[in-house]
Amino acid sequence: MAFSPLIDQLVETLRCLPSVGPKSAQRMAFHLLERDREGGFKLAEQLEKTLSGVGRCSSCRTLTEQPRCSICENDKRDKSIICVVETPADVFAFEQSGIYRGLYFVLMGHLSPIDGIGPAEIGISDLLQRLDNEKIKEVILATNPTVEGEATAFYITDQVKAMGIEVSRIAHGVPLGGELEYVDAGTLAHALNGRRVVD
Amino acid sequence: MAFSPLIDQLVETLRCLPSVGPKSAQRMAFHLLERDREGGFKLAEQLEKTLSGVGRCSSCRTLTEQPRCSICENDKRDKSIICVVETPADVFAFEQSGIYRGLYFVLMGHLSPIDGIGPAEIGISDLLQRLDNEKIKEVILATNPTVEGEATAFYITDQVKAMGIEVSRIAHGVPLGGELEYVDAGTLAHALNGRRVVD
Repeated sequence: MAFSPLIDQLVETLRCLPSVGPKSAQRMAFHLLERDREGGFKLAEQLEKTLSGVGRCSSCRTLTEQPRCSICENDKRDKSIICVVETPADVFAFEQSGIYRGLYFVLMGHLSPIDGIGPAEIGISDLLQRLDNEKIKEVILATNPTVEGEATAFYITDQVKAMGIEVSRIAHGVPLGGELEYVDAGTLAHALNGRRVVD
Repeated sequence: MAFSPLIDQLVETLRCLPSVGPKSAQRMAFHLLERDREGGFKLAEQLEKTLSGVGRCSSCRTLTEQPRCSICENDKRDKSIICVVETPADVFAFEQSGIYRGLYFVLMGHLSPIDGIGPAEIGISDLLQRLDNEKIKEVILATNPTVEGEATAFYITDQVKAMGIEVSRIAHGVPLGGELEYVDAGTLAHALNGRRVVD
């Protein structure tokens, strides 16, 4: 926009947000300027606060403003099970389901040799050290059902089994509420292979 | 999210952005925290700067950091035509087309009695004063082709014609590159009524 460098710069900067292209960024900038300056100022302040205040849990690597996150610190959690996930958002998803009462380990990614992400980058040695120090009975692998996620799960399985600890993988199959017609072939194959006898 | 109030607050605050729901806000917060803290800090700083620095042009009411915007200040523009639009984004759209060389007047909305937006709120008296003071020959109405936009155009037409100044409305019709099959009936009706004889 020729007529305001400050607005141009805001539009450009808003594009650091995921899936925000030039058009959405422009709409956001105009929305804040025309209708919600107060909200915009609050957002600036909160970004500053949260980005400065949030680090990683020293034990599970998830995002938290404490040295150890509230899940690792919670005495009521089952300390003998660790669920391995790729991101803090996955921890959030499991917590929302409310069904899991054990601990987590957050890889912050998955193995991806082409991007230079090896076992060290996703903290595998930290995980193995935890398994060694704490009395862990089971490791649940909940990496994403993608090629990279599966490869990561496979790699961890090898390492953990060598320590004599039980390893499990979350079930893959048809999601609840879906229609079979729209489920992809890979998922259907998983659902068939993983079928259970009905009592 | 039970485990980080700071992240919760950021997710909540991000929802001041248009069309950002709880899921997108969460994705944005995690993206910034995990992958682009630098971008997030820059965004905070730029929001602060732009929202404090940008006000309204004293003459056309568009958003600008100067007392008068660079279009009103530009000596090469045709000062005898004013194009009336609803928002600064519309000015931007016209400027990108590169075809218009006159001035603008930005209503910052449209007449909407139900929301308490009358002629005073969209600056009609400022517009009429400009027409009186400057030697304007033509007013082009480019409000949106919606019920409110049309009503606003109709209202302004009455006022401006009473001053003996020419008023025009931008053409409505089939947009370029579209397929007739997918054009709505109202637009087709406009396109038919506005047809021109081919020389």
